[in-house]
This record gives sequence, structure tokens and C-alpha cells, in this order.
Amino acid sequence: MIIADRETVLKTPELADVMRRIVGSKNVLSTLEDRICYSCDGSKQQYLPDIVAQPCTTQQVSKILCFAHEHNIPVYPRGAGSGLTGGAVPVMGGIVLDFSRMNRIMEIMPEDLTATVEPGVVTQTLQNEVARYKLFYPPDPASAAFSTIGGNVAECSGGITGLKYGVTRDYILALEIVLADGSVIHTGRKTLKSVTGYDLTRLFVGSEGTLGVFTKITVKLIPLPETVETLLAFFQTPADAIKTASQIVANNLLPRALEFIDKSSIDCIKAYNRAFKIPAETNAILLIDVDGRASSVTTESSLIEKIVVENHALEVTTAKNSQERNALWEVRRAISPALYNIAPFKINEDICVPRSQILEILERIADINERYPLLKVANFGHVGDGNIHVNVMYKDGKSQRAMAEGMIDEILHATVELGGTISGEHGIGNVKSAFVPLEIPPQELQIMRNIKQLLDPKGILNPAKIFTQTNNKQPLQ
Amino acid sequence: MIIADRETVLKTPELADVMRRIVGSKNVLSTLEDRICYSCDGSKQQYLPDIVAQPCTTQQVSKILCFAHEHNIPVYPRGAGSGLTGGAVPVMGGIVLDFSRMNRIMEIMPEDLTATVEPGVVTQTLQNEVARYKLFYPPDPASAAFSTIGGNVAECSGGITGLKYGVTRDYILALEIVLADGSVIHTGRKTLKSVTGYDLTRLFVGSEGTLGVFTKITVKLIPLPETVETLLAFFQTPADAIKTASQIVANNLLPRALEFIDKSSIDCIKAYNRAFKIPAETNAILLIDVDGRASSVTTESSLIEKIVVENHALEVTTAKNSQERNALWEVRRAISPALYNIAPFKINEDICVPRSQILEILERIADINERYPLLKVANFGHVGDGNIHVNVMYKDGKSQRAMAEGMIDEILHATVELGGTISGEHGIGNVKSAFVPLEIPPQELQIMRNIKQLLDPKGILNPAKIFTQTNNKQPLQ
Repeated sequence: MIIADRETVLKTPELADVMRRIVGSKNVLSTLEDRICYSCDGSKQQYLPDIVAQPCTTQQVSKILCFAHEHNIPVYPRGAGSGLTGGAVPVMGGIVLDFSRMNRIMEIMPEDLTATVEPGVVTQTLQNEVARYKLFYPPDPASAAFSTIGGNVAECSGGITGLKYGVTRDYILALEIVLADGSVIHTGRKTLKSVTGYDLTRLFVGSEGTLGVFTKITVKLIPLPETVETLLAFFQTPADAIKTASQIVANNLLPRALEFIDKSSIDCIKAYNRAFKIPAETNAILLIDVDGRASSVTTESSLIEKIVVENHALEVTTAKNSQERNALWEVRRAISPALYNIAPFKINEDICVPRSQILEILERIADINERYPLLKVANFGHVGDGNIHVNVMYKDGKSQRAMAEGMIDEILHATVELGGTISGEHGIGNVKSAFVPLEIPPQELQIMRNIKQLLDPKGILNPAKIFTQTNNKQPLQ
Repeated sequence: MIIADRETVLKTPELADVMRRIVGSKNVLSTLEDRICYSCDGSKQQYLPDIVAQPCTTQQVSKILCFAHEHNIPVYPRGAGSGLTGGAVPVMGGIVLDFSRMNRIMEIMPEDLTATVEPGVVTQTLQNEVARYKLFYPPDPASAAFSTIGGNVAECSGGITGLKYGVTRDYILALEIVLADGSVIHTGRKTLKSVTGYDLTRLFVGSEGTLGVFTKITVKLIPLPETVETLLAFFQTPADAIKTASQIVANNLLPRALEFIDKSSIDCIKAYNRAFKIPAETNAILLIDVDGRASSVTTESSLIEKIVVENHALEVTTAKNSQERNALWEVRRAISPALYNIAPFKINEDICVPRSQILEILERIADINERYPLLKVANFGHVGDGNIHVNVMYKDGKSQRAMAEGMIDEILHATVELGGTISGEHGIGNVKSAFVPLEIPPQELQIMRNIKQLLDPKGILNPAKIFTQTNNKQPLQ
């Protein structure tokens, strides 16, 4: 599964010629400046690709892979490059396949409750287009406004709607895939049920570009909920907030979103924007979306408000229209920029634990933090499905990076110990590949490696992702 | 992928000795009478196994597979044996692994919305047990009252709730699996989100016992809907019924069940039980369940009633309590026994088409039927998700069987032509394996065969299922 010595293969000028013949001159980026733009992704690593190709058709993707396969050149499919675990960084050089030109919504079939799209369609664009037919594509990663459906399928993206609606894999019916050798296969059917043969579709969903490259994606849609209401509740203790979340579900309520924000995040938000009216004693926030038929949303929203109040909320605000809802969600959206304001460096973790273990993992993280007094931790995330984003922040990129990594190491160990997973929704990429054995025992991992070997024997597809590999190039920075 | 010459391996007495040492004498069935009981399943084929073992623990399953692997003996995991495509028939002799003693519900975790069970748990038992905690396991195959969760996972069972709630694969979080060589692996996590590595869990779901044997299954649960209402509507034309079904979904309504019954089925039901009050001119029936919060169910139920009436329903009856609901569902439940009343033989097909193609496939089936005037066809099924059970009935088992098979062949061709699948929820087994290439092109099929080869190189796990194989024993009958 090792690429042959990369130094012997074609260099940028020769590669550019070949790519131009396949995708046309205007769809090839070969200057150093252009290649630098494609050298990094949301993980903030930087590895220079030899060339960037922007295919427009399945056939072009197939030709590129045929060529790359013959010449042992690594290929990195890339959506918006917003992934946080390095899924799109060209760690071994080679060809970046940028899908920004394959961004057509090919069909929306309201009667079939399906849509077929190219991988470069931005997720929110799909959501908006199907909404015109009163249809709903539920997976909603925080990046939906800019990340692409191809990237979402590759990473099996989750997001805020996971508790009620599941994740990307629950909405993918069929895929057109170009394999490592350039051959084109079709998995699944455009039907709501199908059990003919093994479930290849879901084997490819979440495979992070390491098994094949998606060129068409058929998604399942559901009717658009009639209405959405939002509640923002402030609590004096995290325990009250977590207990509220549990009691909501225990009372037969499945909110569309059930988001948790901890004290550190709140402090950052307050410092970032003093306009937010957050009561002084607030140590935890819950942000809750309820959707469905109007009559039922009203009932559920008041039931939730009752539970919130019973659990000693300091204050609760309800928003019924989209303007008011947006205002409440501003608090949640402010977290990311706010965190950068207090420390220039952060590692954004993505653990997920069984919901009964949320308080326990938060306590363990606090304990671990005590051993790293120079670092600051802020936790927020999708408490409804146990998916917490743990942000370890540090001020000095050189001296404190190792410290932050040590802390992450301890947090991931604690997570797995509690029955959790080291990646709820961000994927593994190369950023977390060293931690995979913590969660996946050798035999299961070997099965995965064997499947990789079966589908990509030369290892040209997104090499050094998911599985550890030691022959990466040195990063640029 | 071929079992070594079966004539050279151990016979029943020697096998019985080994099995007794592993699972204890009372858990081994070796007499001819006992073996005959395990020679068939819902597909009505009959192949005699050499031995039946009833393991009680994962370790026993592992030991049996270790032994079978070493001696090239085929192994057939078996739940209730209610599958309709031959998934449990021991076509090459060997060991039937009967999971009836591994039927414990190991834990129900209301806070985590999960339950962990052994494979022999009857699906309805699980549904009932979790309902005590106001939780819901939605997949609901018609066989739920007797089929097991292990069998459901192996076949990726669907059922009447597919349109609203999806199918078995959407509810499986984690699996304990014994591989062909006896080693035990664990896939997935008990968390609502997890994207660490490839999705092995869903590769095994629907693999029909050909890749591994499940010994523990963790399922995802959701809150139990507060209430369910049922509507039974009679129509003069199938077109009116199908149009009603489409308009229900187009009006943003997702019923828990949306069942269709055609004229032939109705005639059978009428002849079977004259107590059913079905208007004389009825040529199609829709049976609709609506669930959710009480207020919303009332709204949705009246909206559906309005759509039904607008589409010229002859009559519509609504049931609000479980006794009334049961009475309406009796009509649907009567179909299977009723069909046997008019013809002793039938082939029960399980096609699924995109919902927009339902009328088209029904018309094509009627056209095909014209070329087979001796055969009678009755269609019913889950019209909400396009999954139609086509029943081809014949009176003479010998002379008309080939005719019925010819008709099925034409129906499956038409189904695939319309973008459908040859198996919505019953699986492939050995009954439909010859038709798989109709839907799955050679390269995809080769990937599936390679995965089988990877996980079961000796081909001992449920041989001759999904993939065609020519060295089956002759059936008993």
C-alpha cells in the first residue's frame, strides 16, 4: 500500500501537459501560487501538490485516475477543503482533484424523495434547492454553508441534527464512483429499500477518499418540517444543563438540535461580543431547536421549557420566527471566532460518548486540564448525540503544541474508556490516524487495510489517511 | 470460494461428538428427524444438514467456527428460519448454528437510546421490552412476531415502517461478530455518531450470514410515538390509490405505514373471510398508519382523509384505539393465508421501484401476466417506499413452476429497467442469486466476491448464498 518512490515520477510541467489534455487548459492549476492555495485545508497543515485538476465530467475523473494509476501518482479528491482532520491535504504530493466544477444538481425527484447531485454541490445549496419543493436534506454540519456534499459523503458528516435525523450515511442511496484504476462503478439504487448484495454504498460513505472518488451522489430526502422553534436556556451548573438534555429525551422528545456550551466557551463569547445578554452566573447554555408540524412544535416547545425551568434554568428565551431564531443561534456561531480571540492556536477535538457518559467525560476533561495549567479547554457541541467538540487552546505555537497534544492524547484515552469514539463526525484523515488503534483493535484494522488493498492496491487514493504511514513528505511549514 | 469435496469430511456421528464437547449434549440435534426440522426455511426448499448446534455463548460460536474452518465444513447461522429467499437452508450440508438459545436482551439504556441483544431475540420481543421504557425499535418486518433480530440484521429487514423510519441498517450501531476462522471482532460503537475507519458494521448488515456470524447486536432506539391512528380506504381504481399515496407524501406527510392491496389480493381476501366489509366496486385498498404526538396525529390523519376523499375513495374508515386498529389491519394480515386458499403454490417476489414508477411497474406486471394466462398475480406491499410484493400463484407444482419462474424473470427485468431493485427487503439467498447480475454489473459483483474471499477464504459461511455456485447438493424434495 505504498506509493513507489515519488522522486522518480512525473514533475509539475509534464503532469500539467497530461492534465490539460484531459480537462482542458483552463481547468488545470500549475503555478506555485495556485498550488499553495490547494496545499492546506481546515486542519491547517500544508503540503504542496504537484498539480491541481478541476474535472468537469465523470469521464475526465476516470481518465485522470487511469493515468495516475499507471504512473503511481497520488490523487486527493477535494471538496471545499474545510475538513478538520486533513482529509484534503496532499501529504505525498501528486494530483489534487478539485470538484468545484462538478457542482450541478442533476435532478430533484419530489415524488421519489430523492435528489442526484455532483460532488461539488455545496450542502446548503442542496438544502435550499430541495426546500423549494418543501423537501429536506437533514444532515447539517456546521460547515454546510461552504462544505460540499462530496466532502460530506467522504467524511460521513454529522452536525447539529444527528440526534433526530441521523448522519450523512443515513441519506445516501446510490453512488457513482471512480475507482483507483479509473473504472466507474455504481452502488446502491434510487429506491428507499434495496438489499441486493453487500452494502457497498455505505462502505464508501465515510471512507475519506481512500477507496474511490464520488462523481454522482443520490440522496434521500424527507418532507420539510412545517416549522422550527428555538429555545436558549442559561444554567448555573453544567450538571443542570446535561440533566435537562437527558430529561428532554427521557420525556419522549427528540429536538432537531440540542447544543451545549460550557463555561470557558461562554467566557470567550462574552469577551468577544458584549451585546450578548448572558446572565452573570451562567456556567452552561443549552440551545434547542424543535421542528415538525406547528401544533406539535408548540406542544413540544412548552414541554421542553417546563423541563428547562424545573432544572433551575436562570433564564430561557424562545424564538418562533427565523429572525429571532437567528439571533439566538448567533451565540453558538460566535464560539469559533471567539475562541481564536483568546488564544491563537487550538486543537478542535471531536469525541462522541454514549449520552449517559457526558457529565463523566466533561469531569475527566476538567481533571486532565488540571495537569496542564497553561492550556485552556472549551467544550461545546451536540450534546443530544453525545458529540462534544473539545477545544484545547494554547498561546505559544512552538512550546505548547506538544503539551496540547499530550492533553488530547489523555482525553482520547478517557473517551474510548467510556465507550466513546475518537471521531464523532470530523473523520480521521492524517491528523488522528495515530489514535485509531486506541479504538480499533488490530484485527478490525487489518480488515480495513485489506479492503483498502483490495480497492486501491497501489495506494494512490488519498494516501496516508485513516491508516498511519511513515513516508509522508515534510509539511511546508 | 469453494468448499473442498464434502464427501471426504466428517459425518454426523463424528460431528455430533465434537459439537457435544463444545455446546453440551442437550444443545446438539443429530437425529434424522431433528435434522429434517432444520432442513428448510420460509423459502420451502429442503436440504439436510449434518448436524444442528445450539450455542449459548460467543465463545461456543467461536469454537464451532474454528473447528469448521479447520475441517472445511459449511456453517449456516439460523434465526427463526422465516426468511423467504433461502438464507437459512443448508444447501451444502454441514452445521446449522441455531441461535434460539442466545436470546437474551442484555441491556436497554434509555438515556443512551440503545439496547444490546443476542441474535436469537425475537424482534417483537425487543419492540415490546423497549416499549416499557417508552422507546421504539422501528424496523417492523411482517415476520416481527417470530423472526429474530439476528436474522433481521443478516437480511437488513425492512417492513411496513420503511418510508418514515428506514430499515434495519439505520438502527444498528455496533456488532460483535465471529468470523469464519472463529476470531471475534467488534464493529461500530455504542454512540449515535462514529466515523473512525471504514463502516464495517453496515458491510455486515445485510450480508446474509456469508461474511460473519453475529453474537451481539447494539441497536439504536428512538422515543415511542405517543399515538397511532389507522385509516383504511377503498378505491375504485389502483391509479386513484397510487395517486393518493403520492399526494400524501407531496403534502409533507410521512405515514408510519402506507400499504397497498390490489384487486387480486382483495378478491382472495373476500373469498377467505366474508366478514370483511369491502365495497363491491373496490379495486384497490390503502391502509395507512399515522403516528407521533397526539395533536399532530389528529391533524395529519384529517389531512390524509381529505386527500383520500379528493381522490374518489369509495369509503374510508378511521381507527383511533388499538382494538379498532387491529380490526382494520386484519384485512392486510389476511392476504397471505387468503392467497394460499386459491392456489397451493406461489412465488412471493419483493421488488422495489422509485415511487414514481409504481403505476408503471403494476401495468407492466399486468401486461406480462397476459402472456401467462394460467397464472394469477396478486400485488400488495409497502407502496410508501415503492416496495411491492408480487405474488405469482399457480395450481400445479410440476407443470406450472417453470411458467411462474419465467414470469418472475420478466418482472425482475422490468423492475431493473425502471430503476428498481430485485430485492427490497427479503434478501437474495440462493433463491434469487441467479438474478443478481441483472442488477449488479460484473465489476461491482467482483468487488463483493473479493470481500467475501477476504473474510471467508474457504467459503464455509452460508455457501452458495448471494453468489451463484454450481456444486450444491440436490434438494431433498
